[in-house]
Amino acid sequence: MAEFDLIDLIRARCAVERNDVRLGIGDDAAILAPPPGHDLVVSTDTLVEGVHFPASTSARDLGWKALAVNLSDLAAMGATPAWALLALTLPNADRAFVVDFADGFAELAAHHRVALVGGDTTSGRLSVTVVVHGFVPPDRALRRDGARVGDQVFVTGTIGDAAGGLACLERRQPHLLEIPVEVRDALVMRLERPTPRLAAGAVLRDSATACLDVSDGLLADLGHIAARSGVGIELVADCLPTSSALLAAFDENERLVLQAAGGDDYELAFTAPLDRATAIERDLARIGCGATRIGTVVPGNGVRLLDAGGGEIALARRGWNHFA
Amino acid sequence: MAEFDLIDLIRARCAVERNDVRLGIGDDAAILAPPPGHDLVVSTDTLVEGVHFPASTSARDLGWKALAVNLSDLAAMGATPAWALLALTLPNADRAFVVDFADGFAELAAHHRVALVGGDTTSGRLSVTVVVHGFVPPDRALRRDGARVGDQVFVTGTIGDAAGGLACLERRQPHLLEIPVEVRDALVMRLERPTPRLAAGAVLRDSATACLDVSDGLLADLGHIAARSGVGIELVADCLPTSSALLAAFDENERLVLQAAGGDDYELAFTAPLDRATAIERDLARIGCGATRIGTVVPGNGVRLLDAGGGEIALARRGWNHFA
Repeated sequence: MAEFDLIDLIRARCAVERNDVRLGIGDDAAILAPPPGHDLVVSTDTLVEGVHFPASTSARDLGWKALAVNLSDLAAMGATPAWALLALTLPNADRAFVVDFADGFAELAAHHRVALVGGDTTSGRLSVTVVVHGFVPPDRALRRDGARVGDQVFVTGTIGDAAGGLACLERRQPHLLEIPVEVRDALVMRLERPTPRLAAGAVLRDSATACLDVSDGLLADLGHIAARSGVGIELVADCLPTSSALLAAFDENERLVLQAAGGDDYELAFTAPLDRATAIERDLARIGCGATRIGTVVPGNGVRLLDAGGGEIALARRGWNHFA
Repeated sequence: MAEFDLIDLIRARCAVERNDVRLGIGDDAAILAPPPGHDLVVSTDTLVEGVHFPASTSARDLGWKALAVNLSDLAAMGATPAWALLALTLPNADRAFVVDFADGFAELAAHHRVALVGGDTTSGRLSVTVVVHGFVPPDRALRRDGARVGDQVFVTGTIGDAAGGLACLERRQPHLLEIPVEVRDALVMRLERPTPRLAAGAVLRDSATACLDVSDGLLADLGHIAARSGVGIELVADCLPTSSALLAAFDENERLVLQAAGGDDYELAFTAPLDRATAIERDLARIGCGATRIGTVVPGNGVRLLDAGGGEIALARRGWNHFA
């Protein structure tokens, strides 16, 4: 199967029509018409087999996830997604793999009306780079540098689940083999089918002072908000939102590491003034997205995790470093 | 060295300031302001070690080439480049490699005022995906689907050089070891430091009916123009523009394969009506870019390479297939 057949196959399965796509896949480049009077928001993320996903990941889940982690970046900016490009590196031109991958990608793309407008297919070890484009009203994007002392820190949904799912797949401890299959599946689903919080990001555009998505670990990611905003952040360990699956599968110490240092949940972590907290929780609840207050923005720098008595909890690992 | 230090290092070395970049590297996504009343042109290309470049390629040349092959796609559309993203996968966080890579990338980026606005660094086998964005007046981009029967077919510069350079590096035939070093270097330079024909693309926007860049091989690439335009193309082998280095290094049969089926020259191949030929050659000469008439658009389909007597020349290989 030749490269061009692969591209046709992907194109046929990812057919979202948009008026702002003048020319899609099939030329040297795509021709697009950005909406007048908006900022363009662009992000890219790469997933490498064995680094960002286990070799056991199905092609369909991989297609979903490669787009999801990128849309999550747009969510964190409060942007509305529009266009994607896909650079897919494959060890061989496996038709079944490409069909399944494209179907997983297309399922999420269709849901958010994202048009696949270009890309590249090459041979090599399995790796996926996706680029996404979205729009936001001028100067309204959510950034990392707006947190102010006194702001509350929030996170959507529950965290630690994806890292728990990865621990189940890797069977790092013997007791993980005894977890009920439905619990294990719920956690692995969070790892393999993350939900980009696009509706939440759009809601937060009007109220959050800083926002990002939790991909490398809560402490590590909030460290970026702290550094770019010139503030410190204190988190209360007992406040971290925990799913019933995570509760069922791990003891308290294990959970804390998964929640504070595990990545891949793709929830939004954000800051907002105290007087907007109730409105934010209400507005997010209206779109079916929970949000939990987990800490406070303080003077200083860095992110500290506190126990119930206010003492700092030292963790062996704070986040994901690709070159550790 | 951590991922974030790598990103800082790349950012520091690729500092092109542009007013249309609202927010560059360092957040979940870049925030950009496309110019009103223009189409946005977007393309991406991946280079994988051992597939698109030999392991012997220097980091600096790789940085240049990764951007060059992408800018070449914008050139083929007649677009003016503006922004780039860089997804870099590295086996380890080698500071010297990243510095050299960034310097090669930055050298070309500065020349064309391309701002690096985002990207991703991951660990894995060496692979580079670059995304480029450019602008073009509305409905004025050069496409592949506009060639008409009777048009002349042109190519800029000389072709076959990059494939000749690769043959020298791979030492496929014993006689390649005897090529004078300055001839070899001239060919390898075409492989490792391709020149995106941006100025030529801008000139051709007013006169070409179809255009693309020669990356996979002249016959294979022109096949896309033929297919998308619903025409056939006849090329005259004796007309293919040949550098003195290629003449010095290869015999006639070798040259023809390198020129017709070798890729990686990143010259522009285009079609235009006969009555514009003289003006095109003059306008391109004015910007220091040669162009040669190599054939004609005919009824039918496919691309045929003809000898001086008008007979078709059969080639063992017509172009590059990533999954062959």
